Amino acid sequence: MNALGKQLLMELKDCDKEILNDMDSLKNAMLMAANEAGATVLGESFHRFSPQGISGVVIIAESHLFIHTWPEYGYAAADIFTCGDSVQPEKAARILIEKLGARNHSTVEMQRGNLDLVESTSG
Amino acid sequence: MNALGKQLLMELKDCDKEILNDMDSLKNAMLMAANEAGATVLGESFHRFSPQGISGVVIIAESHLFIHTWPEYGYAAADIFTCGDSVQPEKAARILIEKLGARNHSTVEMQRGNLDLVESTSG
Repeated sequence: MNALGKQLLMELKDCDKEILNDMDSLKNAMLMAANEAGATVLGESFHRFSPQGISGVVIIAESHLFIHTWPEYGYAAADIFTCGDSVQPEKAARILIEKLGARNHSTVEMQRGNLDLVESTSG
Repeated sequence: MNALGKQLLMELKDCDKEILNDMDSLKNAMLMAANEAGATVLGESFHRFSPQGISGVVIIAESHLFIHTWPEYGYAAADIFTCGDSVQPEKAARILIEKLGARNHSTVEMQRGNLDLVESTSG
């Protein structure tokens, strides 16, 4: 499929609960994931919630990565959204699985902006 | 389904191309979408690309909204990720469709963190 963007939607289960609630570890994992994928990091924003849980986004020139964690369930939702052929989102996915210690995970790949459909309506 | 998060993946086609490339209009649309959904805005980050296109994220206490625009195709990809019952992501979706002038659009709803699956693996 000829698409503008590619999005990996990751369900990260049975993770290391301490890492899911540790701001530095999470931020490092997300930035390392972006770098390993070959992305250009433009900025990041992370927020801690009470009593637990962290949300974070890394904006890259090729789109974004985000993560939301629920330490109480050992669960995190992560998305890796990229465009162009210069980045390898699967590398970022592998880093997140490894750094969060996810012993159970699944990933759905979505194509965003199917050019055949986009172009047929923008003329 | 009993899930931790809900994500609307929006394909916004045949949009107003000027709005897709106008930072203020896009930022206002995204913030209005978050507010109308009843979300609590924690921060935002928008970036303009050369020669065109904008990426933006609004971090909310209930997760996030992001958008990536391709003015040349009249296309934008937007995600509205929420958790909890206090927000109404469909209201945010309607605002984006309206403010971007999307004459063609489709939305997929994903459940993130199915609690039956999460809990079965975190014990």
